[in-house]
Amino acid sequence: MFNNHSPDSSPSLGFLQKNNSLEERSRIVSSIKERATKDLLSCDNTGGDARFKRIETDFSNLYARGRSFCLPKMEKSPPCSSCWRWWKSSPATSRRLLTNPPRASVWSCPTSPKQVGFTYEIAPVFVLMEQLTLKKMREIVGWPNGEGDGIFSPGGAISNMYSVMIARYKYFPEIKTKGMAAAPRLVLFTSELSHYSIKKASAALGFGTDNLILLNTDERGRVIPADLESKVTEAKQKGYVPVYVNATAGTTVFGAFDPINDIADICEKYNMWLHVDAAWGGGLLMSSKHRHKMSGIHRANSVTWNPHKMMGVPLQCSAILVRERGLLQGCNSMCAGYLFQPDKHYDVTYDTGDKAIQCGRHVDIFKFWLMWKAKGTVGFEQQIDKCLDLSAYLYSKIKNREGFQMVFNGEPQHTNVCFWYLPLSLRHLPDGEEKRERLHKVAPKIKAMMMESGTTMVGYQPQGDQVNFFRMVISNPAATRSDIDFLVEEIERLGQDL
Amino acid sequence: MFNNHSPDSSPSLGFLQKNNSLEERSRIVSSIKERATKDLLSCDNTGGDARFKRIETDFSNLYARGRSFCLPKMEKSPPCSSCWRWWKSSPATSRRLLTNPPRASVWSCPTSPKQVGFTYEIAPVFVLMEQLTLKKMREIVGWPNGEGDGIFSPGGAISNMYSVMIARYKYFPEIKTKGMAAAPRLVLFTSELSHYSIKKASAALGFGTDNLILLNTDERGRVIPADLESKVTEAKQKGYVPVYVNATAGTTVFGAFDPINDIADICEKYNMWLHVDAAWGGGLLMSSKHRHKMSGIHRANSVTWNPHKMMGVPLQCSAILVRERGLLQGCNSMCAGYLFQPDKHYDVTYDTGDKAIQCGRHVDIFKFWLMWKAKGTVGFEQQIDKCLDLSAYLYSKIKNREGFQMVFNGEPQHTNVCFWYLPLSLRHLPDGEEKRERLHKVAPKIKAMMMESGTTMVGYQPQGDQVNFFRMVISNPAATRSDIDFLVEEIERLGQDL
Repeated sequence: MFNNHSPDSSPSLGFLQKNNSLEERSRIVSSIKERATKDLLSCDNTGGDARFKRIETDFSNLYARGRSFCLPKMEKSPPCSSCWRWWKSSPATSRRLLTNPPRASVWSCPTSPKQVGFTYEIAPVFVLMEQLTLKKMREIVGWPNGEGDGIFSPGGAISNMYSVMIARYKYFPEIKTKGMAAAPRLVLFTSELSHYSIKKASAALGFGTDNLILLNTDERGRVIPADLESKVTEAKQKGYVPVYVNATAGTTVFGAFDPINDIADICEKYNMWLHVDAAWGGGLLMSSKHRHKMSGIHRANSVTWNPHKMMGVPLQCSAILVRERGLLQGCNSMCAGYLFQPDKHYDVTYDTGDKAIQCGRHVDIFKFWLMWKAKGTVGFEQQIDKCLDLSAYLYSKIKNREGFQMVFNGEPQHTNVCFWYLPLSLRHLPDGEEKRERLHKVAPKIKAMMMESGTTMVGYQPQGDQVNFFRMVISNPAATRSDIDFLVEEIERLGQDL
Repeated sequence: MFNNHSPDSSPSLGFLQKNNSLEERSRIVSSIKERATKDLLSCDNTGGDARFKRIETDFSNLYARGRSFCLPKMEKSPPCSSCWRWWKSSPATSRRLLTNPPRASVWSCPTSPKQVGFTYEIAPVFVLMEQLTLKKMREIVGWPNGEGDGIFSPGGAISNMYSVMIARYKYFPEIKTKGMAAAPRLVLFTSELSHYSIKKASAALGFGTDNLILLNTDERGRVIPADLESKVTEAKQKGYVPVYVNATAGTTVFGAFDPINDIADICEKYNMWLHVDAAWGGGLLMSSKHRHKMSGIHRANSVTWNPHKMMGVPLQCSAILVRERGLLQGCNSMCAGYLFQPDKHYDVTYDTGDKAIQCGRHVDIFKFWLMWKAKGTVGFEQQIDKCLDLSAYLYSKIKNREGFQMVFNGEPQHTNVCFWYLPLSLRHLPDGEEKRERLHKVAPKIKAMMMESGTTMVGYQPQGDQVNFFRMVISNPAATRSDIDFLVEEIERLGQDL
């Protein structure tokens, strides 16, 4: 169940979900139990004083109950992050403790579960949830057996920053101690239409934005691989060292998917790190209908994937996934003695905090875990397909409609539908500067009127030499075709006489 | 009310709180109204088509109602971040819209308020809450009129990272575009006992951990200013450029407060950025009894302060405060056209996102704002004083108690109480390596037994040449003296026969 996932095929998940048959469930439970037991055995202290022996844990009751994820019922107060700790005792002990809350948490946490694991003991359940979920995500990306590493971060920008840090560490680990001065001039590559966080990372991490080379895109907003190769060779001729390429899966404005396989070929040829920023597009990996748009993503060295975007998990919930194990830790560990004592009575490889640039982290995994349990993988797939269907509906509705003009031809790859609306007064103007200037002002005016009248809202922006256009993005599966109809009519109502 | 705050005095707050007298309230409300009106007028488009005129906003109803912060009541669903937008319409419009929810949010957000402002329009209320709260925090730090800048970040480690980035930008702005190669060898200084995030920032940002110079501390864990000065001059003699000093207000293990005034003198003398990491100690600024421990903090160029620590706000809630306005923006802005359109119909200086290294940010301000409204400044002060009283109680209880030994002499500065417990078998051993080795194992054993029996938990760690000792930290004002008594007795019960 954990082993048979082939790249780019529809995900075959071992997760328990409402759609699993009974037979599947029992197989999954056995497999998880076996694995959990193995994990635990590998860190068990045998022999010695029983009082100091590592605690034997039956993790199976954590996830072996399908949808009935067993939340502790505290009698007096909501569970706190420290209390979750007690889950790692045996079920019998847990039950006893849950009805007789320990004084463990009295010192610091008057509120609900809030912190996840710089150390396992602070929030063992959340650490385990993270590990299992990250593994599932890596399986879905297509890495064999879901092997690799990863961490949840406060958002896509930070996840992308991690990817640059890790790539740098992979090629020039001495920078960690000696600084950028220890390396030759390193250059990074990304689409001219990629998210601005790549630029922010270049500035913050000491590369400098001048050393982030922007790649040209085609009419649909996708990186042109030949442009990457020519810029890589040009940089090498200048004596610079190309180390990192970001391919975007779902650009912010056009929703474009860069051709990952072609880019991966070039990365392999020139020994560069391939990161895929699938913050926005990653959700489509859950859809057997749409995941082909990220064909080749299993060749990436790292992937950013934000469940808080297309999958509807409340912000914040972003994952950075890394194919090679150990780099995150190597890159970020500082071995703070006061947190990471090697003489703890459990396997300290569960202390994940030294992988992060943060110390205590907000619990982002719990809501995602619960949503996955509730909806199942199939549920996510349906909701994503629904959003894409709605966008396709909008596209088909306006592509030939009087007064509307698409920014690029063809059905959008993601839910981003980009279009201009031309008021009556502009429709028969000849193309030229005057028309452009007037059209540029239309979207801001209509948006302002929408906000004023409070009926709906849709964003706009210019891009390159294209004047302001609307960008409609749907990530809420509760939207309906009638909402789309309303939007189109509202634009016409407010804008036709401008 | 906003103007009369002098450095290092007890905070004189303009915040509305339950403790304000009626007279004070009316004065504060007028002052806020006046200011809000002024802010608004300065960005109002006068004349022109009324449809495109900037919306006049009466911000006063946002915070002018004391504790009755008026949450919108949506009829069908909880308010979403987009809906909060409607608050900036007039109260009458808001009311109408709230009973007839707009279709604005249908596209993306099926859940509750979750995102704060890379742009104002996404979450205007949260942006304003952030601005006002950051200003209050800067007033409490002691910067004249609360002037300056700041942002909420995902935690103290990221806030500290911001401080290093901003300092670098202040002295070598060209690094943003040209990278670290454009600068001479820069060195940073921090206490050997400071939080490891300073080290992580040095690695991540491209300085290299070798260029972070660690400062010696006294027996209480406070930086020795003379050591800073001698290391600065030594670095300069080698041709390095000292740019940044971190002073810790509340170290992680000892809870020590570095002598800020002495360090500030040296920073001024050598033209270095002074950052105060008050992630842990910042809460004490709310206490007229304890804020003297941070005497001189108003001389800092930047301050990290985590309300999610001592003030009991659920994680995550961390602020980076900057004395000089414009640096955050200058350091991090990338002017992404698709987000920050200059032709928006409101004052785009409210679009705070380009100050951050993140894009969308989790809403951390709301809970903090509500807590402040509910407790008042006096409420925070009481809860902080209570925690410090409890720690003083623990200290006085064990300082002369048989079997207990303090790690350093004198009453702790923060709530960190550091001590060894000596089982009977160790008490009469002569000092020496055998005793050290055996004592080193005591705290881990007792902690393991506590976890096993589920009664309570307290952390331990070694530090420098000091073997494992307990570190008791109290930040929950609901703890009581009897909890402390229990802890001490439990340590004795579990440990005395080891």
